[in-house]
Amino acid sequence: MAMVCLSDFEAYAKKYLPKIAWDYFAAGADDCTTRDENILAYRRIRFRPRMLRDVSMMDIRTKILGSEISFPVGIAPTGFHQLAWPDGEKSTARAARAMNTCYIASTYSTCTLEEICAAAPGGLRWFQLYIHRNRAASQQLVQRAEALGFQGLVLTADLPYTGKRRDDVRNGFRLPPHMKVKNLEQAFEVCKMSPAFHSLRWHYGLPPNSLDPSVTWNDIYWLRSLTRLPIIIKGILTAEDAELAVRHGVQGIIVSNHGGRQLDEGPATIDALVEVVEAVRGRVEVYVDGGIRKGSDVLKALALGAKCVFIGRPALWGLAYKGEEGLQDVLRILQDEFHLSMALAGKYFVCNGGYRCFCMQAL
Amino acid sequence: MAMVCLSDFEAYAKKYLPKIAWDYFAAGADDCTTRDENILAYRRIRFRPRMLRDVSMMDIRTKILGSEISFPVGIAPTGFHQLAWPDGEKSTARAARAMNTCYIASTYSTCTLEEICAAAPGGLRWFQLYIHRNRAASQQLVQRAEALGFQGLVLTADLPYTGKRRDDVRNGFRLPPHMKVKNLEQAFEVCKMSPAFHSLRWHYGLPPNSLDPSVTWNDIYWLRSLTRLPIIIKGILTAEDAELAVRHGVQGIIVSNHGGRQLDEGPATIDALVEVVEAVRGRVEVYVDGGIRKGSDVLKALALGAKCVFIGRPALWGLAYKGEEGLQDVLRILQDEFHLSMALAGKYFVCNGGYRCFCMQAL
Amino acid sequence: MAMVCLSDFEAYAKKYLPKIAWDYFAAGADDCTTRDENILAYRRIRFRPRMLRDVSMMDIRTKILGSEISFPVGIAPTGFHQLAWPDGEKSTARAARAMNTCYIASTYSTCTLEEICAAAPGGLRWFQLYIHRNRAASQQLVQRAEALGFQGLVLTADLPYTGKRRDDVRNGFRLPPHMKVKNLEQAFEVCKMSPAFHSLRWHYGLPPNSLDPSVTWNDIYWLRSLTRLPIIIKGILTAEDAELAVRHGVQGIIVSNHGGRQLDEGPATIDALVEVVEAVRGRVEVYVDGGIRKGSDVLKALALGAKCVFIGRPALWGLAYKGEEGLQDVLRILQDEFHLSMALAGKYFVCNGGYRCFCMQAL
Amino acid sequence: MAMVCLSDFEAYAKKYLPKIAWDYFAAGADDCTTRDENILAYRRIRFRPRMLRDVSMMDIRTKILGSEISFPVGIAPTGFHQLAWPDGEKSTARAARAMNTCYIASTYSTCTLEEICAAAPGGLRWFQLYIHRNRAASQQLVQRAEALGFQGLVLTADLPYTGKRRDDVRNGFRLPPHMKVKNLEQAFEVCKMSPAFHSLRWHYGLPPNSLDPSVTWNDIYWLRSLTRLPIIIKGILTAEDAELAVRHGVQGIIVSNHGGRQLDEGPATIDALVEVVEAVRGRVEVYVDGGIRKGSDVLKALALGAKCVFIGRPALWGLAYKGEEGLQDVLRILQDEFHLSMALAGKYFVCNGGYRCFCMQAL
Repeated sequence: MAMVCLSDFEAYAKKYLPKIAWDYFAAGADDCTTRDENILAYRRIRFRPRMLRDVSMMDIRTKILGSEISFPVGIAPTGFHQLAWPDGEKSTARAARAMNTCYIASTYSTCTLEEICAAAPGGLRWFQLYIHRNRAASQQLVQRAEALGFQGLVLTADLPYTGKRRDDVRNGFRLPPHMKVKNLEQAFEVCKMSPAFHSLRWHYGLPPNSLDPSVTWNDIYWLRSLTRLPIIIKGILTAEDAELAVRHGVQGIIVSNHGGRQLDEGPATIDALVEVVEAVRGRVEVYVDGGIRKGSDVLKALALGAKCVFIGRPALWGLAYKGEEGLQDVLRILQDEFHLSMALAGKYFVCNGGYRCFCMQAL
Repeated sequence: MAMVCLSDFEAYAKKYLPKIAWDYFAAGADDCTTRDENILAYRRIRFRPRMLRDVSMMDIRTKILGSEISFPVGIAPTGFHQLAWPDGEKSTARAARAMNTCYIASTYSTCTLEEICAAAPGGLRWFQLYIHRNRAASQQLVQRAEALGFQGLVLTADLPYTGKRRDDVRNGFRLPPHMKVKNLEQAFEVCKMSPAFHSLRWHYGLPPNSLDPSVTWNDIYWLRSLTRLPIIIKGILTAEDAELAVRHGVQGIIVSNHGGRQLDEGPATIDALVEVVEAVRGRVEVYVDGGIRKGSDVLKALALGAKCVFIGRPALWGLAYKGEEGLQDVLRILQDEFHLSMALAGKYFVCNGGYRCFCMQAL
Repeated sequence: MAMVCLSDFEAYAKKYLPKIAWDYFAAGADDCTTRDENILAYRRIRFRPRMLRDVSMMDIRTKILGSEISFPVGIAPTGFHQLAWPDGEKSTARAARAMNTCYIASTYSTCTLEEICAAAPGGLRWFQLYIHRNRAASQQLVQRAEALGFQGLVLTADLPYTGKRRDDVRNGFRLPPHMKVKNLEQAFEVCKMSPAFHSLRWHYGLPPNSLDPSVTWNDIYWLRSLTRLPIIIKGILTAEDAELAVRHGVQGIIVSNHGGRQLDEGPATIDALVEVVEAVRGRVEVYVDGGIRKGSDVLKALALGAKCVFIGRPALWGLAYKGEEGLQDVLRILQDEFHLSMALAGKYFVCNGGYRCFCMQAL
Repeated sequence: MAMVCLSDFEAYAKKYLPKIAWDYFAAGADDCTTRDENILAYRRIRFRPRMLRDVSMMDIRTKILGSEISFPVGIAPTGFHQLAWPDGEKSTARAARAMNTCYIASTYSTCTLEEICAAAPGGLRWFQLYIHRNRAASQQLVQRAEALGFQGLVLTADLPYTGKRRDDVRNGFRLPPHMKVKNLEQAFEVCKMSPAFHSLRWHYGLPPNSLDPSVTWNDIYWLRSLTRLPIIIKGILTAEDAELAVRHGVQGIIVSNHGGRQLDEGPATIDALVEVVEAVRGRVEVYVDGGIRKGSDVLKALALGAKCVFIGRPALWGLAYKGEEGLQDVLRILQDEFHLSMALAGKYFVCNGGYRCFCMQAL
């Protein structure tokens, strides 16, 4: 089987992963409308390609929060990499380092932060955080991550409760016994259930209701008090919230709808990116995840103002294919396709590290 | 079979109900365009979700015409519940009371109003009325309903004649011998057929042409003279008719196209809601039915100005699954999904019992 | 098999007609885009139904060019009715008279005009004409029709050459030996082929190139000189041509694209109707054919300004089902559905014979 | 099998060509979105047909850069015709001459320019050029072409690198041993690979990286210095580049996206044509290729301002069917369909050789 484009990895993963694991990675909330819209929205964007520019030399490196990466694609935080490959997040960390890009490790990793760092010393990594009712647990995680050399703190803002992913409920999804949410072991007592959700008792490896649904913008200040790491907020979809994020002092925004796994029927991320970029007016860096399937999708996101994109499910497909090596294949294909689409669209490197946008129109 | 979302109940009902009963419940007029549009129109509405709001406490109770219900979803009037479950409307009444919501009993019930009330004393119920050529029969029904403690009178305005539901004609639909339109037994003599409809002689348990196609807005005054119950008019789809309804003194409007069973190719109800709400300007309460399949649909309807929604076919699927218990399952799922989507959209309870709308845009 | 709606007749005809005949009737030009658009365009038009109007009495009769018909649906000119039913156009004429409506007999009939008139004396009929290179043949046809009591002359304007209907070319369509274009027997010598169309040598029962592609608006004056019958021009699709038609003194316009059998990818007729009606400003009567499949389509056409509609393929399906009786079934269903949709849309009869339009919006 | 329209030839070629050859001809870049959009965009354009014009005489000849052709359809440059038919480009040249139209011979021909010219002396031909890193090779080609009587030089501007055509990668496409890119034999040494594209090592019969990605608009001046032939630039998709082309002194522009084989998700060519024609304001001739499948597509392109269209894949299907004879069939069908659609749209020849456009609207 030739691995030519990302959908080849998707087909492989669908075929070889246990159904319960595939379903978990593939899941979207409710009717999966937003999950699918993330992809379809890219298809509705058209290039206006320019010809006869010298595209013989193109430098596709960029910097995110001051750190150079080899091309503007990082690894988005996703949970439970051991479901895809035995070495789990250790393989992810190694592949990201090998490709010289950024890996955002999830709170819901099946390896500890320490294991992740030991697997790929010196790699550029950010740590993704949920705020739990047990604030001490969150604080401890932040400080562990900072001590281990993580260079950014990504606060996920769109999960006060877990979205309803029907297949996971049908499958009775839970981690196999030999896997654990290792970073949070023993951190939680079982919380009292909210009466509202008695029929929707899904949870992913942690006690139900361990997450704190009362988090507000002021908790950014609390996080700021815990760490000197830059704070990136993930899950912003509107200009209004982007403005609030800037005002509360974050260093970066990831436009994200959690891969369509939380609120169904919100905007596709590439569509939301436009209004967020416009609202932010360059005050902080803006990234985007969701729906990236081709190198030209990366170019579109950059042309619309993203500094970098992050991939979620495609990284897992790469892991499922061949672990560290498979993920490198995925990244390399995206890199080549990005490079090629940039050349064919007539774009070129500009000294300050930005990309000039000649060439977009929405349908 | 896990019952995770409303379409699971639909699949169950389709599989286990007799075809003639399934077809009757599922039927839409002509090409079923409007029946299907009711659902598709919800899919075209997108949330603009807001993040980092405290959604730990959400009170989803509301009041309709002064009566509190546990969440803004009631049971729309539909006929012949015994086709779905042996106990018929008695089960419906019990489930609605158990979930503390409102049940609109149909004239075309297979239980008498007295049986319905006896099955669930104290439940909040409205009575749905057609105006018959035999006005004495209609008057008697209204006064029976008022005497039995029904708290609202719902006048269906969109059925001067019955819509053409092809499958019912093909099936030669009629009630099984042991079921009757009990509330109207012996009330009607056979009326003289209108010459126009000789090839369309469908009717549903009553003599053809028992309904009065000459009803006009002035008949609201006649109804008003019969009862002190609030009058809710059901079947309004335009701003013009909404204005007329308010001027004729109704207390509530249900935006409805009869589940797409009457005139095909009119507007989807969620689309019509917008202009009705705008025309009414808060003078009376506005509700909507048709196409509600997920909790987030309820949130959309409320965000667009509905005070409450009513479900028709999903209630029948619940009955077909497990009678009273099945209908409670359906309501509970909608309630949980509504609650969850509200949290994920960043909405919260406001003291005056309303919901604030941050977050909608039509595609 | 219950015949409930027009598509039942279509399914019957498709199943029981010889493939070559079905293909001929079903054919559209090229990719059949316009043929299908005629239908789809009706689906994009929505009613704005009004409630609580007295719809107990509705008079659906109308007049076309002064002659009363029982409801605003006539029979469009189509060729070769013997392909559908042995008695051919004689059955068509009888059914139209029985339903008290207008039948436009085609030049391409398989019965003579005399046979048609003898089959249903006293019926309201118009005669459809092509102008042939052999002008004497056309003149003779016009004068025969007038003498036989036809009450209108329909000039087809959209067939300077025959459209390319792929299936007819593949099938090598030609009339069976026992059928003839009887009205034109012996009228034509074989004309010299135009060099341009050597690979497209299809023709339908007449010598190739018998039609005159040099016809212009001035030929209306020639026709006028031949007859006192009102002239109706068929095939107009633009405001510009509608204006020219009025200026050249026609009495009526049929907005038509020949059922999508001539130029593919022109407008759907119901869409073109709007601009034609606006351009004509009531100076002559405007009719429409193409895509009528339900009674509510008739209502839409009338609401958008047509005085009457004409059906083509559905009439042939009726013939194929049961000859005269089958065509009456088709007409009766359309009549009932039209009546019903008018009632459900809240429309009513107005004394001057017109229909009031409350209720349309294009998507 | 009746060959009635171009898709019949497509079906034939798909059935009888070796898969690797079919895939190569059919290939589009990435998801093939643009390849398919080229066709779909024509479907979104509607005629506004006019009636009763004298269409008995229509002269469909036109001139491109001063040379008369029998109708406004030429043969676009495509590679490797021997994959479709043993005689390869020799058959193409003969068919084009027989139909009195223009054939643009590709650099990637499997016959030499000399063989092509010897096969059909006196035919109207242009030569298509890529600019290679080995400029001497390009110069030599240009001068050979001029000496052989080619009458135009077509510079392809949209291929600084080859697009990613997944099926070719999967198939490991390469020419069979007995076929060669004959015009360039021995012209190239193997170039050093660009490090960026290490995983995308596809190439088509030439050493990788033989093309020069540093070409800019100034190289038009270099070409001008080599030859007195008119220069036509192929691959322009924006008004901005059209303006640059005119300013750099080209004689013609072919609006093209390389059949959707280079950058995916740029504009359909018929859509891009509109802005290019508007920008050019008649200063040079504008042509278009991509997506032509019916004679009415040609009419649309002309009505939107193209002087002539060129067909790529349909010509190959014709070759695959019956070589020279099959390609003539394809051209003759297009010619007849073009002629017919022009007649049915009410268009006519105007003395100055142009076509008047009464009749277009975009959806």
